[in-house]
Amino acid sequence: MSDSKHHKRPRKRPKKRNPTRESRAPRTATTGGTYWLYGFHAVASALGNPARRSRKLLATSDALDVLSRQVGTAAVSGAEAVDREVIARHLPRNAVHQGVALEVWPLSIGRFGDVLAVGEDRLKPNIVVLLDQVTDPHNVGAVLRSAAAFRARAVVVTERHAPGETGALAKAASGALDLVPYLRVPNLARALVLLGDLGYWRIGLDAGAEAKLESGAPHPDIAIVLGAEGRGMRALTLQRTDQTMRISMPAAASTKITSLNVSNAAAIALYTLTQTSV
Amino acid sequence: MSDSKHHKRPRKRPKKRNPTRESRAPRTATTGGTYWLYGFHAVASALGNPARRSRKLLATSDALDVLSRQVGTAAVSGAEAVDREVIARHLPRNAVHQGVALEVWPLSIGRFGDVLAVGEDRLKPNIVVLLDQVTDPHNVGAVLRSAAAFRARAVVVTERHAPGETGALAKAASGALDLVPYLRVPNLARALVLLGDLGYWRIGLDAGAEAKLESGAPHPDIAIVLGAEGRGMRALTLQRTDQTMRISMPAAASTKITSLNVSNAAAIALYTLTQTSV
Repeated sequence: MSDSKHHKRPRKRPKKRNPTRESRAPRTATTGGTYWLYGFHAVASALGNPARRSRKLLATSDALDVLSRQVGTAAVSGAEAVDREVIARHLPRNAVHQGVALEVWPLSIGRFGDVLAVGEDRLKPNIVVLLDQVTDPHNVGAVLRSAAAFRARAVVVTERHAPGETGALAKAASGALDLVPYLRVPNLARALVLLGDLGYWRIGLDAGAEAKLESGAPHPDIAIVLGAEGRGMRALTLQRTDQTMRISMPAAASTKITSLNVSNAAAIALYTLTQTSV
Repeated sequence: MSDSKHHKRPRKRPKKRNPTRESRAPRTATTGGTYWLYGFHAVASALGNPARRSRKLLATSDALDVLSRQVGTAAVSGAEAVDREVIARHLPRNAVHQGVALEVWPLSIGRFGDVLAVGEDRLKPNIVVLLDQVTDPHNVGAVLRSAAAFRARAVVVTERHAPGETGALAKAASGALDLVPYLRVPNLARALVLLGDLGYWRIGLDAGAEAKLESGAPHPDIAIVLGAEGRGMRALTLQRTDQTMRISMPAAASTKITSLNVSNAAAIALYTLTQTSV
């Protein structure tokens, strides 16, 4: 699934036009190395995830009390009690850390086909969310959070033009990064082909579609694809779907706003598909 | 509707623990004075709003071409063609301005009771969204955008502990700030009493409620209240509702995440109420 011939950019991350708070920080995630999680939800969820390897836990003494009540004293036994300023020094400027930070290695998720295989014991509906070049970590984090709440199987994004696994993403996901597999693939169109082979019904969410989401999917295994705001799905992504569907809006033709924030659209899609497709 | 006896803080804005990008900028909104809108959607929507007073339009020549196709050449006749750097100088650091910025005065919305009066000619369902101390302008902006898409009547927030009318809010709202009345009230509980007097059925969104949103509201005039993430609605706010409802989630008891990003929850609520309550 490599598309290395399209890799014209140097490996060094290019200057971004829309940098996040995270990207301005001196000590943030680099692929492969450790990075810092922060905030109660993100840190507690990581400490409760047996698949998550961590290196260092920093906490103020007040925050440590709260955290140990959430995850048990054993899980926080290696914590280093520090002042807020020491924690802030490791984080992006103005990160809302609530007095806790955990240095972790990125999660090792496993192979795409293994993670998403359609077994007899799967939940129904079995929903995978794919995001086509959605770049804002706050939006992608919110999608992960809704995916966890509605028990989606995974969130799939592209390796490029999508946020990596960082503290900002984990914070927006409010613990969901350690609960829902976050799969980064080189090529979304090929991922959709593979999902088709695995037996998923692939729905592209598109404001211009005829079918309404609330009519439900004709299959319990669903891959739902959302495009970036403004641009929407890329043509090749759209070609690899089985059908398009839309979120119905009242009198959409007469209002000037017909598109939603992408995480809001994903939340409505997850809610509706779990209501109508069980 | 004044709650001045609770005003223990000095009028000067206290140091915030969770500053937004906006608040770090030198030249951002101050109540009463002008502030800068930026980005195509926000600027075009303001230029198309007869109730919006503007002072100066800055644009790169490329962006001006795009904008004049969106809103007509007359609306951009006073534009000053400048370099991107000149625009950036007026905006928060890293603001995604797309080459356009418009200096405007805050909107004058009108009196609460007049704006929300239940007339015969209203749309049904007639939905007002209230946010109880939701502070993040990205979240509130996304709620405004969903409110516009689902033709909600207004978004109501508290004067304190909620974002003011700023460029960051308008950007997240993607044009909706000039389409949906954004009402800031001194006291949300009193606003709910007034909405009750006007004839609205007041619903508090609460994960612990028995009633599910999809069972619909018993009335076409609906006020839906959402609390801040984590804290939820304040007790006094909750007391002023007619009922609580929840977003149904599959097997919520067995998942660790049972609350959504507040703008995602609002989007689901607006979608569901417009589906079930017409």
